[in-house]
Amino acid sequence: MRMYDIIAKKRDGMELTGDEIEFWVKGYTNGTIPDYQISALLMAIFLKGMSKREIVDLTMSMVESGEILDLSNISGIKVDKHSTGGVGDKTTLVLGPLVASAGVPVAKMSGRGLGHTGGTIDKLESIPGFNTQIDQKKFIDCVNKVGIAIVGQTGNLVPADKKIYALRDVTATVNNIPLIASSIMSKKIAAGSDAILLDVKTGSGAFMKDVDTAFELAREMVEIGMGVGKDVIAVISDMDQPLGYAVGNSLEVMEAIDTLKGTGPQDLTDLCLTLGAYMLILSKKVHSVEEGKVILNEKLQSGEALQKLSQLIESQGGAKAVINNYNLFPQAKYIVDVHSATEGYISHIDSEKIGIASLVSGAGRVTKESSIDLSAGIVLNKKLGDNVAKNEALATIYTNNESKINEIAGLILTSYRITGEPVQANNLIYGVVDKNGMQKF
Amino acid sequence: MRMYDIIAKKRDGMELTGDEIEFWVKGYTNGTIPDYQISALLMAIFLKGMSKREIVDLTMSMVESGEILDLSNISGIKVDKHSTGGVGDKTTLVLGPLVASAGVPVAKMSGRGLGHTGGTIDKLESIPGFNTQIDQKKFIDCVNKVGIAIVGQTGNLVPADKKIYALRDVTATVNNIPLIASSIMSKKIAAGSDAILLDVKTGSGAFMKDVDTAFELAREMVEIGMGVGKDVIAVISDMDQPLGYAVGNSLEVMEAIDTLKGTGPQDLTDLCLTLGAYMLILSKKVHSVEEGKVILNEKLQSGEALQKLSQLIESQGGAKAVINNYNLFPQAKYIVDVHSATEGYISHIDSEKIGIASLVSGAGRVTKESSIDLSAGIVLNKKLGDNVAKNEALATIYTNNESKINEIAGLILTSYRITGEPVQANNLIYGVVDKNGMQKF
Repeated sequence: MRMYDIIAKKRDGMELTGDEIEFWVKGYTNGTIPDYQISALLMAIFLKGMSKREIVDLTMSMVESGEILDLSNISGIKVDKHSTGGVGDKTTLVLGPLVASAGVPVAKMSGRGLGHTGGTIDKLESIPGFNTQIDQKKFIDCVNKVGIAIVGQTGNLVPADKKIYALRDVTATVNNIPLIASSIMSKKIAAGSDAILLDVKTGSGAFMKDVDTAFELAREMVEIGMGVGKDVIAVISDMDQPLGYAVGNSLEVMEAIDTLKGTGPQDLTDLCLTLGAYMLILSKKVHSVEEGKVILNEKLQSGEALQKLSQLIESQGGAKAVINNYNLFPQAKYIVDVHSATEGYISHIDSEKIGIASLVSGAGRVTKESSIDLSAGIVLNKKLGDNVAKNEALATIYTNNESKINEIAGLILTSYRITGEPVQANNLIYGVVDKNGMQKF
Repeated sequence: MRMYDIIAKKRDGMELTGDEIEFWVKGYTNGTIPDYQISALLMAIFLKGMSKREIVDLTMSMVESGEILDLSNISGIKVDKHSTGGVGDKTTLVLGPLVASAGVPVAKMSGRGLGHTGGTIDKLESIPGFNTQIDQKKFIDCVNKVGIAIVGQTGNLVPADKKIYALRDVTATVNNIPLIASSIMSKKIAAGSDAILLDVKTGSGAFMKDVDTAFELAREMVEIGMGVGKDVIAVISDMDQPLGYAVGNSLEVMEAIDTLKGTGPQDLTDLCLTLGAYMLILSKKVHSVEEGKVILNEKLQSGEALQKLSQLIESQGGAKAVINNYNLFPQAKYIVDVHSATEGYISHIDSEKIGIASLVSGAGRVTKESSIDLSAGIVLNKKLGDNVAKNEALATIYTNNESKINEIAGLILTSYRITGEPVQANNLIYGVVDKNGMQKF
């Protein structure tokens, strides 16, 4: 088999065999096929597409390029959750304890962030003492003991995806549904769970800017799941404005705790109840979303969900006292309100720009090597449709870098658009894709 | 300017500006842009195409990546000639002396071959003493003194094309008309002539297998010429069987000498008269092909064309005595006829296979580092439409490698198809493309 012929075949729009896909994925991972041949192939894939069969084969070839996590020592149906990401997305912090309190084992591997804020792992590390770097055995022990563990990546999972993604990133071949779908799904499959709940975000603050593309990505991922025998449900949710109010690391953890206490933002609470209900369906605990929501609401009301977070923190060495004392989190030196120059209704929030404001405040990483300020970030005071008075606060900046405050304030001010007419916010959930097809709400 | 954005723009089917094209050609040549970005761009160009303006800009960016030969010290209109190549193509050896004898200055830079036989430079080196490695000053002196010089590449011409071509060769992006056209034309433009005659070959022995594609390539190259202010004529000629009878290095030189003596193969003679007539038109010596052919026929009949070859050989240090004594050429140890097993008419010759037979005999190079056997090759005895008797020779093998004779004979026998019915051979010339458009014969 020659790489040249594989490139030519895809260039001419033909379907690659499973063997051919395995050949190039394996060859690239072990270094016998050079970058320049893979980048030509990736561009041909970008422009000529892949069949469903090819996408499944690519996903599995990537999965098989490294370790596959063995969660068989955890009893019950393990349901993993993945969000395509967006500004202020802290759902894992709420959802994990919430569904764990309803008896779904949560063995979650998360990442650090490169962008507006840190990832789930960075956020958890704003809890004093919380250890995210535990080995596989301890990880599984924690899940068996308290029903939930959230750790940084352990083992050599999907090395092919890491290498291919890095190449796509510099050759303008990232933004392609089959390649995105297989990349996400390979990581989820290698993480060893039985079923997967996907939260596909769409809107100005998400990677997928329009709803149709988000549905297409969702469908592709559900079909990969069907192709490899994993039960997958994808929820398409709105990210036209940041989720909740907080954007930052410790700021988001506090908001997640509020939500588990039942006093969190409405959108975040609703989204977690919906996503959680689908996770209960996937774990075969309930038959309908309504049934799932009833159970999860009870877990919120009863304090069991919050109790589960407390157990999670304790089992991973963190200070569970943070739950009732937010002063234990790292504190920003400068806390500055940004005031509206006009009165009216919020008609638009440029989430991308809010994300950049958060990055400038110190909450995010520009490169893999950057350190992040766990106390920094932005807390919005107004969201879409809200009424704002002149000189009322639109948002609050948290930072340790005084010299950046004006820049951050400018970013926030130009993110907001305010009109004289009342404004209706978007729906939170656009629809669901599962093995039975697509359902738009 | 970022390479990433240039790739994305072409990926999306948009036209690159001249500055963008210069940026990537220059960056790749000087090593600041890596292979893997250029190969992604080349695949995008392959699949999305380029506008006429882009093709001209790419050609000129490649020309400007290195030296441009200055032929201004040669008086008269310098006409270069390029063939897209094929099995047994020795036209330069005939055409150069022929048009030089009619007063067209021939300052020809040729290459070594990688494939079935050597290139023009290798062929000329089968003449004892012939020196193809002379510097630019001497090269121009020779043209001024005897009207013709043929040398290996001198100076650093079109380094961008060398690098880009090598990358295309391993990323399945060679076979693309805009990239082929700009590659050929950049080399011809850098070689400094005023006008260019292109011999675009089509058929089983050529790179362009079908006539329409050959016309398209011809049109593209003529348009590049128009875009950069060079007068260009392209002749589309048949290569469905080897040109003439000889395939090999010294074997082809002998056949070229025969042709200049007026006793060469009909097809080679006709092609050289036609191509030569267009070269006379480009040099403004005549107004029509007919007029040009009359003059060139006179030069053949009078022996002036042969005399010009003799002067060429002498001026570059070669033994002009070879013209009348072919024993002075390197001689193959084994000369073996291959006999037909059936009688009938030749209906097909797989030129590619004859080329491989020549390569196996020792006449060609497999890699740049291979040495070639200047005495080796194949001489056909039968061509398309010819009648052959049972046991009559189809061809003769010339080689120094006894162990390969059976393999070569097998290749030759399976190249020929023989039928009971008389067969009509193809036309030699399919048409011409010039600035006034396309003319199919």
